[in-house]
Amino acid sequence: MKSKLISKLEAVINYRFNDKSLLVLALTHRSMGKNNNERLEFLGDSIVNLVIAEALFNKFPRAVEGQLSRLRSQIVSGSNLAKLGNSFNLSKYIILGVSELKSGGCFRESIISDTVEAIIGAIYLDSNIEECKLRILEWTQNKIDTLTIADSDIKDPKTKLQEHLQKLQQPLPIYTIHKITGDLHNQTFTISCQISLINKEITANGSSKRKAEQKAAKLALKEIEQQTATGKINPPPAT
Amino acid sequence: MKSKLISKLEAVINYRFNDKSLLVLALTHRSMGKNNNERLEFLGDSIVNLVIAEALFNKFPRAVEGQLSRLRSQIVSGSNLAKLGNSFNLSKYIILGVSELKSGGCFRESIISDTVEAIIGAIYLDSNIEECKLRILEWTQNKIDTLTIADSDIKDPKTKLQEHLQKLQQPLPIYTIHKITGDLHNQTFTISCQISLINKEITANGSSKRKAEQKAAKLALKEIEQQTATGKINPPPAT
Repeated sequence: MKSKLISKLEAVINYRFNDKSLLVLALTHRSMGKNNNERLEFLGDSIVNLVIAEALFNKFPRAVEGQLSRLRSQIVSGSNLAKLGNSFNLSKYIILGVSELKSGGCFRESIISDTVEAIIGAIYLDSNIEECKLRILEWTQNKIDTLTIADSDIKDPKTKLQEHLQKLQQPLPIYTIHKITGDLHNQTFTISCQISLINKEITANGSSKRKAEQKAAKLALKEIEQQTATGKINPPPAT
Repeated sequence: MKSKLISKLEAVINYRFNDKSLLVLALTHRSMGKNNNERLEFLGDSIVNLVIAEALFNKFPRAVEGQLSRLRSQIVSGSNLAKLGNSFNLSKYIILGVSELKSGGCFRESIISDTVEAIIGAIYLDSNIEECKLRILEWTQNKIDTLTIADSDIKDPKTKLQEHLQKLQQPLPIYTIHKITGDLHNQTFTISCQISLINKEITANGSSKRKAEQKAAKLALKEIEQQTATGKINPPPAT
């Protein structure tokens, strides 16, 4: 990697590496072979989790554990870390093997968010936890500042669906894997969500079982909403 | 809490708190009301994850991410943290509300492991990450020392079952929640695991959906093994 390119990225993330090879490793996707960024990502993931946990612990002195953990997931989720990575223009820097290059891997959300975590791991090895904390907070401060406790009440679709069905005194949804396609590191899961209340098969795809299930739950909620609006389903009893 | 008791626990964990009220808070279960150890647990969980991640990252320079993460889960799993808590005799110190006291909550694995995490969170607030690192490594060093890379290959029953069925070119198992009993914080999940290959309903209970599913998968694997041994099922083709 050219040193000019390295300097440019260092300026964007506002950290100068003593050991530039750590940054290069953090940018190296596993499609390049054994020497890749996955170990750094493992380390970086723990660091970002701790730094954000502490920031939220301090910002929300009355939030309970569940709220803190939902607030955190809004900052450290794959899609939010990918947004951060995009703000660094990471797709220009990520080092991919031929197969991933061809399929546009440098724009894939999961690859970008993993690389952000790997960069954090690399900064940790190059310096210390305090330096990581400064950088991570600098990168996420806007997001943390705009979070309010109300954001912690945003429930995921599966939880919402379950709660809605419980209110209607209906059985819980049954999620079933229909098929898994793609190779080991790039799988697509097709999930069905059976709900006795609605007479319709709901299926959804996703890059993980969880994502596909969340998508299916979202579709199911929409369907229930529609059938409730048109009078096919009774609304839950007022509480 | 009597200061003699506090000193005794401090001696056991080998850390003297500047602010003793932090230790008392870490020992206070949510059954005591709003002022409880859950926020500290949230913080402590992140800290122990990072400390163990780093220790394993250094100990196993060639382990890939998946191996590191399986190795870590062997140290920071609820049951292992509970073992650590039992070695501190935590059940003598945990402060519980009347209902939990009656039902023997101080001996419950989840309450003990949560308290261990809360104590780590309390040490962090009372000092710093370096102090936490020293304590956590002191408490877990034996376990870390005896871990070998082979331990990372221990797969959980659900993964094993899935892989086994794939080898047999059989459809994936379908896990269904049959019922959830108990109150919100002490639920029991009953799960069934349907496998078209075996003509038998497999059900299992657990304190979480995941635990019940793992238990059901373990039973299913046993059943498949037995039916294979008695010739009812063909073994997977040799590869």
